[in-house]
Amino acid sequence: MYKTSKVVFSPRVRKSPYFNSTVKYGAKAFSVYNHMYMPISYEGTVEDYKNLLDGVQLWDVGVERQVQITGPDAESLSQFLTPRNIKKCEIGQAMYAPFLDFKGGFINDPVMLKIDEDCYWFSLADGDALLWVQGIAAGYKFDVDVHEPDVSPLQVQGPNSLKLMAKVFGDWVNNLGFYKFKEVVHEGIPMVIARMGYSRELCYELFLKDHSKGNELWEILWKAGEDLNISAGSPNVILRLEGGILSYLADIDRNNNPYEVGLGWMVDLEQEEDFIGKEALRGINQNGATKKLMGAEIEGDPITVFNEESWPVLIDGKTVGSMNALVYSPRLDKNISYTILDIEHAQTGKEIIISSPDKDLKAITVDTPWLIRAN
Amino acid sequence: MYKTSKVVFSPRVRKSPYFNSTVKYGAKAFSVYNHMYMPISYEGTVEDYKNLLDGVQLWDVGVERQVQITGPDAESLSQFLTPRNIKKCEIGQAMYAPFLDFKGGFINDPVMLKIDEDCYWFSLADGDALLWVQGIAAGYKFDVDVHEPDVSPLQVQGPNSLKLMAKVFGDWVNNLGFYKFKEVVHEGIPMVIARMGYSRELCYELFLKDHSKGNELWEILWKAGEDLNISAGSPNVILRLEGGILSYLADIDRNNNPYEVGLGWMVDLEQEEDFIGKEALRGINQNGATKKLMGAEIEGDPITVFNEESWPVLIDGKTVGSMNALVYSPRLDKNISYTILDIEHAQTGKEIIISSPDKDLKAITVDTPWLIRAN
Repeated sequence: MYKTSKVVFSPRVRKSPYFNSTVKYGAKAFSVYNHMYMPISYEGTVEDYKNLLDGVQLWDVGVERQVQITGPDAESLSQFLTPRNIKKCEIGQAMYAPFLDFKGGFINDPVMLKIDEDCYWFSLADGDALLWVQGIAAGYKFDVDVHEPDVSPLQVQGPNSLKLMAKVFGDWVNNLGFYKFKEVVHEGIPMVIARMGYSRELCYELFLKDHSKGNELWEILWKAGEDLNISAGSPNVILRLEGGILSYLADIDRNNNPYEVGLGWMVDLEQEEDFIGKEALRGINQNGATKKLMGAEIEGDPITVFNEESWPVLIDGKTVGSMNALVYSPRLDKNISYTILDIEHAQTGKEIIISSPDKDLKAITVDTPWLIRAN
Repeated sequence: MYKTSKVVFSPRVRKSPYFNSTVKYGAKAFSVYNHMYMPISYEGTVEDYKNLLDGVQLWDVGVERQVQITGPDAESLSQFLTPRNIKKCEIGQAMYAPFLDFKGGFINDPVMLKIDEDCYWFSLADGDALLWVQGIAAGYKFDVDVHEPDVSPLQVQGPNSLKLMAKVFGDWVNNLGFYKFKEVVHEGIPMVIARMGYSRELCYELFLKDHSKGNELWEILWKAGEDLNISAGSPNVILRLEGGILSYLADIDRNNNPYEVGLGWMVDLEQEEDFIGKEALRGINQNGATKKLMGAEIEGDPITVFNEESWPVLIDGKTVGSMNALVYSPRLDKNISYTILDIEHAQTGKEIIISSPDKDLKAITVDTPWLIRAN
């Protein structure tokens, strides 16, 4: 389905602490993300998706590098970096907390973990936002230390994930709230265990704090999961689109602001504290966004190709936006996609043409997400 | 020789303006560099190297993204970012001008082009140094605009490169000095043409200023090069090691400072202007570096494997450094490598053991480079 070429392993690109396990358990294709190899296919996009829904799946997301901010100004710098109101985040809690630039465009869209009063982690999407944070911290004279700690996440996804987690780590996992986390040491392996939500399925994220123990952690989980239908997988495009999840650089980038991609709810313009992009976002909020991310359902047989770049979206022969991601959802039995449309066309029920290199595709705009988190 | 897997083409990673040409002319493997696909093999590492030495070669290095700094404070910000003394750089001249952090470690190692009094380009190695420059510019209140312009370099390498360049662009190329450049528009294609020096061979770099014209530019050069033995290639590990060139993230990274990798000559501590890392570098310079990059020649038959990560270097069974890159040089008929050694062992003529996963390799330390630029 995907077009592929070869990728070469070289020291210029780092390996995840779970790399050997991903190869052992069948990783067939990789991408590069934050200067690291990221497995992106085992049995194939559809098979990996079905395997996840049938049991529990391990995802090597060690590529999510952390920016750790510590010191007296850790809270004030963290607040300056994101439009969220981080006062609402308690120790032991996580929060989706994008970094924006001064024009309100996405620099990155990390999840923030409040480790302590004076210690925050930002779990990055693809991009060296560490350099952004360090440049801002130095220039604005925040009294902080900012660096990349030895932390490499592993995700446990799928309907059987809670069973697996409770079996390995104990019954306390049953009571772990959504976007809450706990620090543990298990069989000598230090980690932060969080309940997260990439997919609408149950999901846990293990922030391993010792890269030398990646494969050991993987094997512990694998062995415990043998009677829970465990498999290996990776962030999956079908799950992503079904759940309305955005992937930085694929679906959104620096040219997008929160209001146009359905994330206006996280911008707190009323808070007293200043943050990067506040002035620009106030203007966008007053004037209204000029484009909007919409879902679109594409007519016809299940689509088996993937777009390698954005495709134009047309109404009456005129370009009114772009289509950034599409996939056939087996559960919905629909071809679903993300489009970004000029605001005057961003209503549900609009007939649009998605102009693929091969042929024109007829589609109807809809709201996202298609599936809502069940738990 | 290289171990490979599959890489998938997706919209999350950008394509170079020359992408279609690289596929058309036989690119067999890619890496990802600055969020873009970079071709890294056509006929193979050795064959590509021989092809270059036999004629002229095109390298798609569109992954070298530019940071453009313009405005009243363009010069002062550019100076603040690098330990070079940029007053020595004239308009129309380029200069290797690494970015360091406040501890003197490499953030990136771009080549700077002084486009105008108030306009500088920094041609990046792998890493989002744009975010670093924008964070520093904002925090320190430099009056500048900093962004990534529509500029995508293509290199013309090899003994016949001057013949090709003069044939296509005119006799003026014969008089273009080393690290000098000129802005031209050729058949409607706007670009900056520079004489550069990745390899010890003649080398030109075409900074294309309109991404829609990449394949057109490639074809113009290819057609003109048909009687000059033209081929397609990419930054080549044999040329890199022979010439003592450093590749950011492969050979050096943020843990290295200029003094320990043979780049102390570019640090101007005497200049009046402040720059990031000056204080730290003064200390390192006074106390002396604690490790040093050295060449090492490995005994035995031509080596046909590549290291996927650093390998330990031992003397008398004790780890004294690491080996970061190795290759067999057909011209030298030697296995050559880069090591970084503890300073007390960093002398030429030392017998060392490089501990590869398969076996111990005997080697002798030597100075780099093995080959000096001929022109």
